[in-house]
Amino acid sequence: MNVNIGLVGKGNVGTSFLQLLNKKKSIIIDSCEFEIKVVGIFEHDGAILDENGLILENLLGLGKDFRTHDNWKFGYRALDYIDKINLNIMIETTPTNPENGEPGISHILKALNNKIDVISSNKAPFYLEYEKIKKKAEDKMRLIRYEATVASCVPILSIKRNLQGNEIIGISAILNGTSNYILSKMSDEGISFSQALKEAQDRGYAESDPNLDIRGYDAAGKLVILANELLGYNMTIKDVNIKGIENINEFDIELAKSNNQVIKHLSFAKNGQLYVKPQRVEKYSHFNVNGSLNVIELETKNAGKIVLSGRGAGGIEAASAIMNDLISILQENTKYSSITFRG
Amino acid sequence: MNVNIGLVGKGNVGTSFLQLLNKKKSIIIDSCEFEIKVVGIFEHDGAILDENGLILENLLGLGKDFRTHDNWKFGYRALDYIDKINLNIMIETTPTNPENGEPGISHILKALNNKIDVISSNKAPFYLEYEKIKKKAEDKMRLIRYEATVASCVPILSIKRNLQGNEIIGISAILNGTSNYILSKMSDEGISFSQALKEAQDRGYAESDPNLDIRGYDAAGKLVILANELLGYNMTIKDVNIKGIENINEFDIELAKSNNQVIKHLSFAKNGQLYVKPQRVEKYSHFNVNGSLNVIELETKNAGKIVLSGRGAGGIEAASAIMNDLISILQENTKYSSITFRG
Repeated sequence: MNVNIGLVGKGNVGTSFLQLLNKKKSIIIDSCEFEIKVVGIFEHDGAILDENGLILENLLGLGKDFRTHDNWKFGYRALDYIDKINLNIMIETTPTNPENGEPGISHILKALNNKIDVISSNKAPFYLEYEKIKKKAEDKMRLIRYEATVASCVPILSIKRNLQGNEIIGISAILNGTSNYILSKMSDEGISFSQALKEAQDRGYAESDPNLDIRGYDAAGKLVILANELLGYNMTIKDVNIKGIENINEFDIELAKSNNQVIKHLSFAKNGQLYVKPQRVEKYSHFNVNGSLNVIELETKNAGKIVLSGRGAGGIEAASAIMNDLISILQENTKYSSITFRG
Repeated sequence: MNVNIGLVGKGNVGTSFLQLLNKKKSIIIDSCEFEIKVVGIFEHDGAILDENGLILENLLGLGKDFRTHDNWKFGYRALDYIDKINLNIMIETTPTNPENGEPGISHILKALNNKIDVISSNKAPFYLEYEKIKKKAEDKMRLIRYEATVASCVPILSIKRNLQGNEIIGISAILNGTSNYILSKMSDEGISFSQALKEAQDRGYAESDPNLDIRGYDAAGKLVILANELLGYNMTIKDVNIKGIENINEFDIELAKSNNQVIKHLSFAKNGQLYVKPQRVEKYSHFNVNGSLNVIELETKNAGKIVLSGRGAGGIEAASAIMNDLISILQENTKYSSITFRG
């Protein structure tokens, strides 16, 4: 069975996904073999299109010079072409735009409108317009998956399926690696916030404008996605009470230490309330992780706390989450067989 | 749609499952409603049978006096009756027998032979006769689930499905709560092994014969199940190199402490090798958990380490894992619709 894929965004995540896909070649599910064809790759300034499926080795061999590919079409935009190239699944990996979610939201809605299933690693659409996107997917009977948007490779969204016999009633989490790196540095080395931030920037963890990380906006967006998916909320980032770590100083850190505690930037969802704020935790808490790890604690009704942790960022990490989403969509489709699958 | 369930073993886990089921009443999956009927409950000395489905409130109201139920049939054994009461799914919760896996293995094989799907919280059958059971399930095209056998409520077996886009290449874990409790006590309070063991027994964590726990046999069994399921091995407990904690003394503990380490009873699976042994870990390691928690670290090919932790034992915890297995089987069955589901 042929599955036609369109990749929108060929940055670190998109390229890592193509590399992973190139290793897999084809995917066999329930004795049904899927031949994955990448028929379109879109960047902001053009696209590479091939209705027979691009040869990934050749494409990947070009590296950052992919615009020299024979099939490069300058000026072809995803919004104008995703409905014209016979796609089964669109993978949205454009950079997240925290202001208005664009062009991600438009790509996603256009794909759904044209009965194309969607996978996204772009998170803003889901913390800004969750309800609209979910409703569109239901109306058009399409599948939409976005595991990579929270904690990258950690399967924290799809785990809902594995906990259906239980009930998740609350979430506490560390969702931003940069602010966690900064707080860890301050605590371990006794340095100031600004020094730690500079080190994070030097090591490439923080953007030159690190406000989304340290002011808690990035964590808040991920918290919204988690709460909507796992707790059944219907929130946007405007519903989160957000406090950043920019005012934490050496004195706060030392005071916590003297009580055998550390300060962490935590995200909470419970009883319909969403918070992101710096908070003290015990030194031996599972929240006391170093570096850029993410930790998510799920409070369950029947079985106490279940904790997951792993790398929260990275190209190949996000790509592996996208691959999981892809396999999950193919499995769902075999369920309904030829009824929902086109190609 | 009616689903007829037979419960074999009405101990802590079996009873907790009935309580959980009684709260749920019916389960709706993909707009297909399943009416769950418990048509048989088996103990070693008899059974309660009702082809119309037992009224769980009444049964649970009897508590430990369930043998006074009107439908109690003294001497009716599961092995003689599970093929005669029109079962769709058998749930095996009898105590695990590390010597020969009986009567669990016979119950499971009999159910599969009679085209009954199986859920088990009894682990010995899977670390003693994994290949035989798997083959039987395949031959008879039946589903078999045993999430509760390892780390109870933590969905560590079913998570394989969520990581198909990645690849699990190694496992490191703490799988026995009793030995972890003992080592934690020794480390925190500086007491001897025998004192810590006595405290574990007084608090009901350890059996009066705690050898399965402290000699590593219980952890080894769980490690086999994990490795077979997640790494595709085909092992039995005889393949595990097992070292217990019975010879750890205060001196070992102090020496570790002086290096900012703690001694933990770890289980490892990698490169076809299985080990259970005491090992030093860093004080701030995610393996340094207290009490009876379980921790499982999955080493993945694409995304580093993904760590899960949670309660490793308990009636309601295991019952919630059984409920997940039940829902998972019902979901698989809607996939094939009436072809595989009878009732």
